[in-house]
Amino acid sequence: MNYPLKQKEKFSKNVIDYRNRGMNLETLINSANDYYLENDIAVIYKKPTPIGLIDVDHKNNHIRKAYFKDKSTFDYNGIYRGKYIDFEAKESHSKTAFPLANIHEHQFLYLKRILKHGAISFLIVSIRDEYYLLKGEDLLYFKENETRKSIPYSYFKENCHKIDIGLRPSIDYLKTVDCIYFKGED
Amino acid sequence: MNYPLKQKEKFSKNVIDYRNRGMNLETLINSANDYYLENDIAVIYKKPTPIGLIDVDHKNNHIRKAYFKDKSTFDYNGIYRGKYIDFEAKESHSKTAFPLANIHEHQFLYLKRILKHGAISFLIVSIRDEYYLLKGEDLLYFKENETRKSIPYSYFKENCHKIDIGLRPSIDYLKTVDCIYFKGED
Repeated sequence: MNYPLKQKEKFSKNVIDYRNRGMNLETLINSANDYYLENDIAVIYKKPTPIGLIDVDHKNNHIRKAYFKDKSTFDYNGIYRGKYIDFEAKESHSKTAFPLANIHEHQFLYLKRILKHGAISFLIVSIRDEYYLLKGEDLLYFKENETRKSIPYSYFKENCHKIDIGLRPSIDYLKTVDCIYFKGED
Repeated sequence: MNYPLKQKEKFSKNVIDYRNRGMNLETLINSANDYYLENDIAVIYKKPTPIGLIDVDHKNNHIRKAYFKDKSTFDYNGIYRGKYIDFEAKESHSKTAFPLANIHEHQFLYLKRILKHGAISFLIVSIRDEYYLLKGEDLLYFKENETRKSIPYSYFKENCHKIDIGLRPSIDYLKTVDCIYFKGED
């Protein structure tokens, strides 16, 4: 049977809420991190969103007024196979390219710094319902050597590492990390 | 000259605000981390306080109501000499001992996990205006093998590593990390 009215209602509710950008990818990654933690594979957490407090009710431990601060680092960090790991997850809402404006200038600076100190750092980019691992080094190279302000989809297809989606873990990004950063090690 | 009234007024305002516990030590460490970052020595940040959002004014990007969540990890993490580093800072308001109740059970679990994966992890404890680095391994040993519910001051004097206080950096805890974890390396 068909319920055209109900379907229409459902569809019209499907308004883009920009605050939720990256929410689905975030849910996938949080669930993968839970899996990695429970199975003693890695200890990786999402950093809390930085908040600026304006008015706090100390007695009841409540915040009455606050605002969202800009991020100067990446969203996730932790330890995997003895290494410091640090990454950001981004959904590209364009089907043709990933805009570099998605990454703030101070995040590029942060990325340079942690790479210099030996971190494993990358972006997980979701584009056209596919998931790619873009190495931090490649992101910096692209930014510094290309005149384009976005990374075309074809670049991901040709140069990046596709990440498998499954049941448990939901998004097995550490399998991709193994392929890239621990090649040849067991 | 004496101003007994003014002094009394000043004194009576000096109420203990438990929300600010650890504030002075936190200021010292944040300043040291800024120094380490500017001088390209390490990239270590304080994690934002985890917040639970109740009511958000998306239009103005303001939080109308929220609450403080419990921490399940430590306050600071980052990368130093290629290693994952993760620690917590605590001020002991007792002059005789550091109460283990200062560390939550899920933080002990977290500590065990990251140590197993190869992290450098410790507490920085301020007691009697002195600063000590207590290795995560020693903290766990104390908790699991001692019946006492607090670590006596004498334990810090005898078994821990005192941290130097200076101008720049304000608290040179990475010098102490070098002594303990990178002994004999350059």
